[in-house]
Amino acid sequence: MSQDYEQLPMNWVGDWAGRRAALTPDKPAICDPDAGPPLTYAEMNERADRTGQWLMGALGLKPGERVAVLCRNRLELVDLYLACGKTGVVLAPLSFRLAAPELEDLLARIAPRAFLQEEALDELAEALTLPDSVAHRLRLDDAGGAWQRGPLAAPAKPANRPLAMRDPFLYIHTGGTTGKPKICPISHRQMTWNAIDILATSGGALGPQRELVTFPFFHVGGWNTLTPVYYAGGYSVILRQFDPGRALALISEQGISHFGAVEAMLQMMSAHPDFAAADLRTLEGITTAGASCSETTMRPWVARDIPVAQSYGLTEGGPSNFMLVTDGLDADTVWAQRHSIGQSMFHTDYRITDPEDGAPVKPGDTGVLEVRSPHAFDGYLDDTGRTANVLKPDGWIWTGDLARADAQGRVTLMGRADNVFVSGGENIAPEEVERVLTDYPGVKAAAVAGVADARWGQVPGALVVRTDPGVDARALTEHAEQHLARYKRPRHWRFVDAMPLTGAGKIDRKRVANILKQSE
Amino acid sequence: MSQDYEQLPMNWVGDWAGRRAALTPDKPAICDPDAGPPLTYAEMNERADRTGQWLMGALGLKPGERVAVLCRNRLELVDLYLACGKTGVVLAPLSFRLAAPELEDLLARIAPRAFLQEEALDELAEALTLPDSVAHRLRLDDAGGAWQRGPLAAPAKPANRPLAMRDPFLYIHTGGTTGKPKICPISHRQMTWNAIDILATSGGALGPQRELVTFPFFHVGGWNTLTPVYYAGGYSVILRQFDPGRALALISEQGISHFGAVEAMLQMMSAHPDFAAADLRTLEGITTAGASCSETTMRPWVARDIPVAQSYGLTEGGPSNFMLVTDGLDADTVWAQRHSIGQSMFHTDYRITDPEDGAPVKPGDTGVLEVRSPHAFDGYLDDTGRTANVLKPDGWIWTGDLARADAQGRVTLMGRADNVFVSGGENIAPEEVERVLTDYPGVKAAAVAGVADARWGQVPGALVVRTDPGVDARALTEHAEQHLARYKRPRHWRFVDAMPLTGAGKIDRKRVANILKQSE
Repeated sequence: MSQDYEQLPMNWVGDWAGRRAALTPDKPAICDPDAGPPLTYAEMNERADRTGQWLMGALGLKPGERVAVLCRNRLELVDLYLACGKTGVVLAPLSFRLAAPELEDLLARIAPRAFLQEEALDELAEALTLPDSVAHRLRLDDAGGAWQRGPLAAPAKPANRPLAMRDPFLYIHTGGTTGKPKICPISHRQMTWNAIDILATSGGALGPQRELVTFPFFHVGGWNTLTPVYYAGGYSVILRQFDPGRALALISEQGISHFGAVEAMLQMMSAHPDFAAADLRTLEGITTAGASCSETTMRPWVARDIPVAQSYGLTEGGPSNFMLVTDGLDADTVWAQRHSIGQSMFHTDYRITDPEDGAPVKPGDTGVLEVRSPHAFDGYLDDTGRTANVLKPDGWIWTGDLARADAQGRVTLMGRADNVFVSGGENIAPEEVERVLTDYPGVKAAAVAGVADARWGQVPGALVVRTDPGVDARALTEHAEQHLARYKRPRHWRFVDAMPLTGAGKIDRKRVANILKQSE
Repeated sequence: MSQDYEQLPMNWVGDWAGRRAALTPDKPAICDPDAGPPLTYAEMNERADRTGQWLMGALGLKPGERVAVLCRNRLELVDLYLACGKTGVVLAPLSFRLAAPELEDLLARIAPRAFLQEEALDELAEALTLPDSVAHRLRLDDAGGAWQRGPLAAPAKPANRPLAMRDPFLYIHTGGTTGKPKICPISHRQMTWNAIDILATSGGALGPQRELVTFPFFHVGGWNTLTPVYYAGGYSVILRQFDPGRALALISEQGISHFGAVEAMLQMMSAHPDFAAADLRTLEGITTAGASCSETTMRPWVARDIPVAQSYGLTEGGPSNFMLVTDGLDADTVWAQRHSIGQSMFHTDYRITDPEDGAPVKPGDTGVLEVRSPHAFDGYLDDTGRTANVLKPDGWIWTGDLARADAQGRVTLMGRADNVFVSGGENIAPEEVERVLTDYPGVKAAAVAGVADARWGQVPGALVVRTDPGVDARALTEHAEQHLARYKRPRHWRFVDAMPLTGAGKIDRKRVANILKQSE
C-alpha cells in the first residue's frame, strides 16, 4: 500500500496559524505598528479562525473559490492569508501599482467571488468595473471598524478544512513591462516547500528572527518572507508600503534582525538623512532579491558591519531558489562572494544550459539557469502555451536568467537570456557590463542596451546615474577597458538623473533602449 | 500541467551530505570520538562520495538493492548511510542484540546483496548462515583499515543518482517480545519529512545544536536523531554503544547542548558516580522517547536546571510525531507538563479513537492515538496483513497507544491498547497506574499487570523496584488511594531488585505477568 501525500487531504495543510498556535501560543508573531502592539501566535490564530468562519459562513466561499484583494500590507491581509490557508479559499492579491484596465483584465481572469478593497485605494477601486463573479464586496476602512464588525465578529472556532498539498492557495500575477500579466496559481505544496527550503537552507535560524517585511503582499515575495518566519515561530513586522525613513526607524524600534530588499530599497535607505544616526545594532544581515545587487549599493551597509548577501528565485520556480548562506562565514568571506547568489537551496536542483540547444554548458560557462524543486509551480492559469515555455520535462523551470557557476557550485547571474544582444557575432549580457560600471566609485546605477551600428550590427550603449559629477565617459571607458572584453565596452554614454524603472522597481529596458536610441 | 513531486527523481533527494557540504562546507558535522577529531560537512561529503562510488563500482549495487550491516554506531556506518542516500542503495542495519536465528530470519527476508560486519561482532557474525543473495562481504576491523582500503580508496566524485521521494532508503526492523520482527522499508519521503517536521516544530533550533546520539543506528531513532541535526547544519557526536559514564564525559568534552534518551538511560546516568561532578553547563535540554518517562527519573536532571521534555513517535508513523516544545517556556511551565508528550508536530495530524468502534472519543477521554503525516510509512515488507492493521484509510496510522488530550491539545499517553486488562468491566491501562507509583519518592520503577481474581476476573498487581527500603505495600497503597480510582489500585505487590526488560529496554510485560502470577 502506498499513499500519495500530495493528494491526501490533511488537517495541517495550509494551517500555518493553527499549528504554530498549538506549539508556541504565547510567542509574539506579527506586528503591524500602524494597527497596534504585537499579537501572539494564539491571538493570530483566533483572528484567522474568525476570518475563516466569515469566509465560509457570511460569504459562503468554497475551497478553490477566489477572494481578490486591493490592499497595502496590513494586519487584516495577514488574517485573510491565514484564513485562506485554513479554509482552502484562494487569496488573489492585486497590485495597486497597476492601472484600472490592467486590473480589470486580471479580475476577469481570476473571477473572484469576493472583492476586498482598502480605504486608501478608494480612487483606484471606484474606477474598476468588477466582473459578474463578484458576489461580495468589502471596503476596509483605515480605522479597521469594518473588519471588526465583519470577520472578527464571526465565531472563534476552528475553520480548518482538510486540504491536499496540490490544492491552490494563492493566485499571484507576475509580468514585466510587456505582455499581458501572467497569473500563477500557487499551491500549498509550493508555499509549504518554499518555507521548508528556506528554513533548512538557513540552518533553522528563523525561530529567533525578527523580520521586517519590506515586500508588498501582491508579490509572492511578501508572503515568502512572512511565511518561513511564521512557520518557525519567529516575529515579523509589516509596514503599509516601503518607506526608507520608516524602515530605518522600525529597525531600532522593533529590534529587527533581518530584512530582505531589492537594490533600490537599500539605496534609498542608505541615502536617507536618518541613515547615519540610525541604530542598526540588532540588524544581523540583509538579503537582496529581485535582481543582482551592486557592490556600490552594498558598501554603506557593509561599512556598518551588516553583511549583505544575495538571493535568487522566481515566482514560477520557488519563489526562493538560491541563497548565499553566511552561517559560519566571516565578513571578508561574505564580501568576497558579493556578486554571487550563492548555492542552490537544500531542496533545489539547478543546471545551466545552452540557450540554443538546451544542452548543459561546460563548467564555468554562461548559460540559462534552470531550477527544479518541490516548490515549482504547476503552470500559468489558463495559458498552456506560456507554461510550456517555462515548465520543462522532468520538472525543470526555465528561468530565462543567464548564469555561471564556479568550481564550488556558487552561481553568479549574468543577465537575462532575453536581454542579450549580439555585437559582431558575440553575445552580450547587459547586466554583466552594468555590474562592472556600478562597481566604479561615484556610479549609482547603470543600464546597458544594444545601439544600432553600421559595422557591428549593435554596439553597447550605457545609461549612467552618477553621484560624483566628475565621473565621465572617459573615466568609465578606462574602467571598462580594465574589466571587459573589447566588444563588451560601451561605445555610447548618456548620463541621467534617474534610471527608468518598471512598476516592480526593475530597470525598464525598453525605455533605456529608447533613450539611448534618441541620444544618437 | 501538474507534476507529482513524490514520483519525480531529483538530485537532492537523499543527498544530505552533498547539499549540506554545498551550503556550509567548513562547519563541523560529525565526531566519532573513538575514531578521531570532528569532520566537516565537506569532509563527510567526500567520504560519502567515495563510499557511494564503492557501492556502485566495486560492489555494483543498483538502486533498491540492500546492504545489510551488523555494526555498532561508528563513523563508517554514517558514511554508508550518506552514501546510500546518494546512490539509492538501501541500508539495512541489524540489531546485534538479536540471537543468530532471529538475524538469519531477517537476512532471508531482506535478501541483501552485501553484508558488512564489525570486528567487535565477529562471534555473532560467524554464527550466521548468510542467504544466497549476499555477493559481497566486508569485515570492518576496529582500526578501520579495511574501510580505508575499500570505500575510502574509491574516487571522490559525486555519487548522486536522481531519486524520487518514494524510493526506499532504509529497511528497519521493529518488534517487541513476541511475534516475528516486522521490517519497515523507510522511504526518502519519510526520512526527509521527518527531518522537516522536527526542524519546523523545534522552531529551527537545530542549526546551533550540539547533539549526542545515544540511540543505536539499528533503530530508526538513531538516524532520526542524527538526520535533522545534519540537515540543519548542526553538530553530532556518536558513541559506539550507550554507556552512562562515557555519555556524561562527552557532554562536557564536546559541549553537548542536547540529547535524546529512553528512561533507562537517564536513570543510569543520574545513578552514575560521575553524575554529581559532571559538568553539564552546555546541556540545554533532554528529550525522552520510547515510552513515558516518570518524574522520578526526571527529577535529578531538573534539579540541575536541565529541562526534560517528552516526545513520542513510532517507526511506522514518523518516527517522530509529538514533541513538547519548550521554546519560550519557563522551567515551572515545562515541569507542569512533564507527563505530556506535548502537541502533535507541525506536519502531524492526530485523533483519538474508541478501541472498539474506531469513532473519535469525546475530548478528554482516553482512546487509541492515531497519527497522519507525510512521514508515515508505506507498509511492512511483504506483509499486507499486518500492514492493514496499522495503515488505515485516509493515511491514518493506528499506533496501539492509548492517549488522551487536554483542552489545549496536549496529549498524555495512557498505556498500550493491547496491554489493557479488564477488572470488573473496567479497562485498566497498566502505564497509568505505573506512573502514579513511580511518582512516589523512593520508587525507581514499577510494572503493573492483571492478576487472576475470583471476583473481578482480574485485579492489578504491581512489581516495584525501590531505592528506599522503607517504601512498602502499605505506603504505596495509601499513595494509590490518593491518586487512582479504586478498581485501578494494585491488590498484589512484589518488590524486586531489577525490572525485567526486553532487548529494546522496555518493560517485558510477559515476564512481569509471570512473576506476579508466581507470587500468588
